[in-house]
Amino acid sequence: MSTDLSFSVESRSGAARTGHLRLRGRDLQTPAFLPVGTYGAVKGVAPETLEDVGAGMILANAFHLHDRPGEATVAALGGLHRFMQWDGLILTDSGGFQIFSLLDIAAIDDEGVTFHSPVDGRRRRLGPREVVDIQLALDSDIAMVLDQCPPLPSSPRQLETAVRRTTRWAETARRHHQEQSGAGQALFAIVQGGLDDDLRRRSIDELCALEFDGYALGGLSVGEGSAALQAAAMRYAPLLPPDRLRYLMGVGRPADVLAAIAGGIDVFDCVLPTRNGRHGTLFTSEGTVHLRNSRFRELRGPIEADCDCTTCARWDVGVLRHLIMVGEPLGRSLCTVHNLRYLIRLVEQARQAIEEDRLDALLQAHAVVVPAASS
Amino acid sequence: MSTDLSFSVESRSGAARTGHLRLRGRDLQTPAFLPVGTYGAVKGVAPETLEDVGAGMILANAFHLHDRPGEATVAALGGLHRFMQWDGLILTDSGGFQIFSLLDIAAIDDEGVTFHSPVDGRRRRLGPREVVDIQLALDSDIAMVLDQCPPLPSSPRQLETAVRRTTRWAETARRHHQEQSGAGQALFAIVQGGLDDDLRRRSIDELCALEFDGYALGGLSVGEGSAALQAAAMRYAPLLPPDRLRYLMGVGRPADVLAAIAGGIDVFDCVLPTRNGRHGTLFTSEGTVHLRNSRFRELRGPIEADCDCTTCARWDVGVLRHLIMVGEPLGRSLCTVHNLRYLIRLVEQARQAIEEDRLDALLQAHAVVVPAASS
Repeated sequence: MSTDLSFSVESRSGAARTGHLRLRGRDLQTPAFLPVGTYGAVKGVAPETLEDVGAGMILANAFHLHDRPGEATVAALGGLHRFMQWDGLILTDSGGFQIFSLLDIAAIDDEGVTFHSPVDGRRRRLGPREVVDIQLALDSDIAMVLDQCPPLPSSPRQLETAVRRTTRWAETARRHHQEQSGAGQALFAIVQGGLDDDLRRRSIDELCALEFDGYALGGLSVGEGSAALQAAAMRYAPLLPPDRLRYLMGVGRPADVLAAIAGGIDVFDCVLPTRNGRHGTLFTSEGTVHLRNSRFRELRGPIEADCDCTTCARWDVGVLRHLIMVGEPLGRSLCTVHNLRYLIRLVEQARQAIEEDRLDALLQAHAVVVPAASS
Repeated sequence: MSTDLSFSVESRSGAARTGHLRLRGRDLQTPAFLPVGTYGAVKGVAPETLEDVGAGMILANAFHLHDRPGEATVAALGGLHRFMQWDGLILTDSGGFQIFSLLDIAAIDDEGVTFHSPVDGRRRRLGPREVVDIQLALDSDIAMVLDQCPPLPSSPRQLETAVRRTTRWAETARRHHQEQSGAGQALFAIVQGGLDDDLRRRSIDELCALEFDGYALGGLSVGEGSAALQAAAMRYAPLLPPDRLRYLMGVGRPADVLAAIAGGIDVFDCVLPTRNGRHGTLFTSEGTVHLRNSRFRELRGPIEADCDCTTCARWDVGVLRHLIMVGEPLGRSLCTVHNLRYLIRLVEQARQAIEEDRLDALLQAHAVVVPAASS
């Protein structure tokens, strides 16, 4: 491998584990949650505030940044770290999920995908090489291969095609990345296969044979429900190489995150804490709370008494409710900060629980029922 | 007077002056610019950031806060200072401008105004007493009387009616405020009269006879153009009591602010720096700049090399442009911060120039042509 990535598992408790990632001089303790900054910014949250909430790695989206402002512009402005004013780690998603779930696809073949631009309707084409080139130009720390991400449910034939093509694209991307990479960027593969056990195992086997720097479980959290998602994470995480970072994509419900950590997942990303925050839907240890409920109108005190976020340190719930009700951007930012901190703190608590071999107690406190192990 | 307000002029240069306002244990150096936080928050800017830009007093809108969340809710949440998490001064506008410029008016008489609610269309009524009560419940430091603010141009008859009614309402408000006020809130009157010299002088005379804590010039910056606005400010500011704070409402163009300071105005408010910021229109010493212009696409470096705002300290113009182009809230906040700091710094520079008796040089540097004095 031509990358600077080193990852070491530091402690274990059952299938769960803590670890330390070092890449290009930047560090991350795992498990970790990645806030989403699709267009190079987490919505309404400044970089210094992301440090405050304890973020160590942020996700940006290569496909969206390719659209606007274009990777050449990001490169001309000094690359993604300077662009985002973020000294921590940056992972760029390839945009496979966005292309296959949001766009009007014209054709898919082994060399790439042709789709209609959502901006101007014109036909455009991206393949595994182009998506590597985009991410090299962006200069993120971790790049993701282009994958074919089918919706669930999909037919067995569709799922099989997606697995075959994802492997083919991954192979092309791996070779191209090795030829191009000079700055130590890491490249991760994305496992597909839906909820089909044979296809998931085949996808894992094929991608592991290609020796990537890390592995993601993709194509989950796309409508299959929490029980199926948690079961899949717990079943397939242990099949990924134990010495590589394991990344569960698009998962951010607190219970799902805890269950996946129990299964051996290291990192997560999700728009849920930020999107929920903008709508005044807040994570709490008692479950999610909707600020629009009139019972919060005149409530003084923080969202949660024991929360250590900057929003809870300063703001009354009744004021946050008002700011959300009138659409003030400040209210959206304050609620987003609470949700991000809630999730990152939960993951920090899980890390400590694994170190102290008492993860089960944390799972029980959050009413997470770990599915029984199956073959 | 039953208020805690003390105001002293500290230095003069021509008609211009610097001063010091002390009210309920809070201080303000004048001249000063007030950021607008209509609903209790400056759009996209946290209170700690308002301190960073040098704001000393913020404006909120009594009419809008009466609508949502209601003054009783603000009072239950501890009053406007706790509600906004702002320890500096707060001035509440009465909402006269909003009622007369934005709403469907059903009837106006000497006791108040009946209008159709923009929320549910129902007939509602507010008079000078109710607007005082709202502001006492909000617990702002400075309350404004309800005024009748006609658009420009208006007929002489409309302007005369507005002046007569504004005086009548001011008298009612003054008496009611004196009977109710216990916490040292100050009450300011609003001069009307459009661009009619006789009516302006009559409005000033009638309101000054009522002995308010401070005086605002209202009904300007409503379409009359910069030259007429500046001439009116310079002509009528000196007719206001020299020992009272003088407030020019709704003015925030840098040249207009400087001209009005030259005429003896002490404080200003305007949505311009915040609204412009959200659209990527930036104040600079070379004039306003539109970030959407493609020439900024790959530009590194701050908006202005000598700006001391937190945005210019950290962010490349090309990144700000991208964030505005994709509608990221972070971009709107960063541009708003620059504009607020630009205007507050300009006013600080004017203060220093007055102290050093060289305001003319500052006016010239900003290409402000002071209209010749007239009788």
